[in-house]
Amino acid sequence: MSIYTDAQSIIQQAIQACLPDQAVRRALEDRTFGPGRVLLVSIGKAAWQMASCAAALLGDRLDAGVVVTKHGHSQGEIPHCAICEGGHPVPDEGSFAGTRAAMELVRNLSPEDTVVFLVSGGGSALFECPLIPAEELEELTRELLACGADIVEMNTIRKRLSAVKGGRFAQLCAPAKVYAIVLSDILGDPLDMIASGPAYPDSSTCEQARAIVEKYRLHLSPRAMELLGEETPKELDNVETVVTGSVRELCAAAGAACRSLGYEPVLLTDQLCCQAREAGSFLASIARTHQDTKTSLAFLAGGETVVQLTGHGKGGRNQELALAAAEGIALLEDTLVFSLGSDGTDGPTDAAGGMVDGWTRERLSQAGLTIHQVLAENDAYHALERVDGLIRTGPTGTNVNDVAVVLIRRARRG
Amino acid sequence: MSIYTDAQSIIQQAIQACLPDQAVRRALEDRTFGPGRVLLVSIGKAAWQMASCAAALLGDRLDAGVVVTKHGHSQGEIPHCAICEGGHPVPDEGSFAGTRAAMELVRNLSPEDTVVFLVSGGGSALFECPLIPAEELEELTRELLACGADIVEMNTIRKRLSAVKGGRFAQLCAPAKVYAIVLSDILGDPLDMIASGPAYPDSSTCEQARAIVEKYRLHLSPRAMELLGEETPKELDNVETVVTGSVRELCAAAGAACRSLGYEPVLLTDQLCCQAREAGSFLASIARTHQDTKTSLAFLAGGETVVQLTGHGKGGRNQELALAAAEGIALLEDTLVFSLGSDGTDGPTDAAGGMVDGWTRERLSQAGLTIHQVLAENDAYHALERVDGLIRTGPTGTNVNDVAVVLIRRARRG
Repeated sequence: MSIYTDAQSIIQQAIQACLPDQAVRRALEDRTFGPGRVLLVSIGKAAWQMASCAAALLGDRLDAGVVVTKHGHSQGEIPHCAICEGGHPVPDEGSFAGTRAAMELVRNLSPEDTVVFLVSGGGSALFECPLIPAEELEELTRELLACGADIVEMNTIRKRLSAVKGGRFAQLCAPAKVYAIVLSDILGDPLDMIASGPAYPDSSTCEQARAIVEKYRLHLSPRAMELLGEETPKELDNVETVVTGSVRELCAAAGAACRSLGYEPVLLTDQLCCQAREAGSFLASIARTHQDTKTSLAFLAGGETVVQLTGHGKGGRNQELALAAAEGIALLEDTLVFSLGSDGTDGPTDAAGGMVDGWTRERLSQAGLTIHQVLAENDAYHALERVDGLIRTGPTGTNVNDVAVVLIRRARRG
Repeated sequence: MSIYTDAQSIIQQAIQACLPDQAVRRALEDRTFGPGRVLLVSIGKAAWQMASCAAALLGDRLDAGVVVTKHGHSQGEIPHCAICEGGHPVPDEGSFAGTRAAMELVRNLSPEDTVVFLVSGGGSALFECPLIPAEELEELTRELLACGADIVEMNTIRKRLSAVKGGRFAQLCAPAKVYAIVLSDILGDPLDMIASGPAYPDSSTCEQARAIVEKYRLHLSPRAMELLGEETPKELDNVETVVTGSVRELCAAAGAACRSLGYEPVLLTDQLCCQAREAGSFLASIARTHQDTKTSLAFLAGGETVVQLTGHGKGGRNQELALAAAEGIALLEDTLVFSLGSDGTDGPTDAAGGMVDGWTRERLSQAGLTIHQVLAENDAYHALERVDGLIRTGPTGTNVNDVAVVLIRRARRG
């Protein structure tokens, strides 16, 4: 076993643990529900996989379900479920039809019934029932974007113009219980943001909504203005939410894999959001400082870095991070840094990320490349390809951000 | 005791431990020497403080000494020592005279004698005896800079043109023992780089020196070419070196102070070198992830970040780091980030660094400032000044890079 096979094993185990069906399994296994009906509503880009797993686990306990996913994302029938496909990132008639079917499904339920609500990324567009004409909503969204409104301001307005966002779907389900299983694709798991929070209390107020209209001098129809005055739910006592398959679990799974291979895992953060190349430099400086460790160490940082575009090359944030780290860990023995996107796609490339060691810089140099120059051209993909430094997993079927790992391997004792 | 008084105490203890005299004390206390003479040579910007402390500790055991420091840095007489002042960063006749005095001092010693050699930053210019005319050396240095030679190439050439650099001073001391105490101001403590390594074996070769001349088509005098052929010492068996007061000790002292105040210290790195604001973002993401800790935590990162100039404001790398972190720790309870330069001077300001907490962003906002904009203008100083976020220590008398600390304070148990 080399440090490279260790890395491959960590990658495999981390992704495996964050696949939507695994996430749903953890949340549903050994779970009991009230004596009434059990209904399933699954929304988002991973809706099909999540619903498929849930249906298998629930078996005959499941009465009926509605799945709303992106066009082309359905992979066949699911017992007891209607499957709808809609537009993403812009909602379309398919989104609306699927959402209406879900709203229909949860009408007239009793306190003994349960709605298992599976939420994944993309839900904002796929799960929508506008209370104003769709064209008017689209026009307003464009207007908000144009005047520089931030995402919080956008949501404050849009939640009030929707029949399901901002906790309103959970309100429709009442008095039935809602058991929400959320596959998080946003750092920090802000439950009011993921899919616009259909089953999460909304903290924004009508007053704030009106202030935004004034601030940007928005032109709203009388009906829209009226809707901005209708408050969203501030408390939802029929909802229980578990967040699963988030970047936090990706890090935890990677950490557990490290431990099983003899590395002591140190979780630095699961909310990394700085520049990719600077994160690489920071992680490399951690690697340098801990070279004299007696035991094998693994430092983990999950999140989503950003790439500063300065050139026209090919790459992704994980590849940039790894390449930048290669400069800092040059000549270090048994030290490796890798970073990958859990969806298997890093930037507009066919690689999931990059992996570098103490000799990557030398190998690049022999190929006539300097890391500084490659980074200036944002061309990490081609550079890493030359030195066998790309991680390729193919599409993984999940999307819970990225994880970067520093491995320092030392002789096993005992 | 608040988290703020904790921070102040950590800062004070960390700097105290890295003062040149403390560093010399640790290295000299309880130290015994051979039966012969004990001589002192102290070079660099901290030469006076280091020599003063050493002379006090050695007392009558000290036979004679030479101190070479920067113009204006002497603070009076030191028993048994001649004090010389020279030019920095460009060596002048004072540098040369002081260096000659030191060379004279260590002539004709016996194996039973000891040279206590105190080295601090600035020694490259202050301790120099060129083997070619000073003007020729200056011209060559300009030429090397102009053609883009890196620091390693510069040193490979310059060490061969000097009577003291590249291990040659230790060679002059032989057969006497040399006990070198190095106050490091370069990350990673590269002993061949600090003051150009007068008592450290030189790993560069004559062949490399000639290759550099060819590479840049340098025009050297016949005498200089001849000197490039004379090898520097590759081994020095009369030298013992201790590195003290480096950023590593700064971090260790800060960590010990954290522990004494109830924080569990986690050393991330002592070789931080990425962009200041990105380091701040990274540290803030660590703070966010560890909010649910039961015990108080302190994450430490030492090193020297860089500032990307995008505006014309006033600030320094430590102030930028802290301000950037303020965005990421906004609204966090009992969480504080500070960063400071151990010399007490951060950038061209009268502050040592910056300190921020979970309410810094709000306070800035009330003052009409956004962190993003302040960073774009590189104006951290004025922003932090508005919210009482500047650390002011005054000049500290040491210079061992910077340290940044994340404090997360939780209720003490037991």
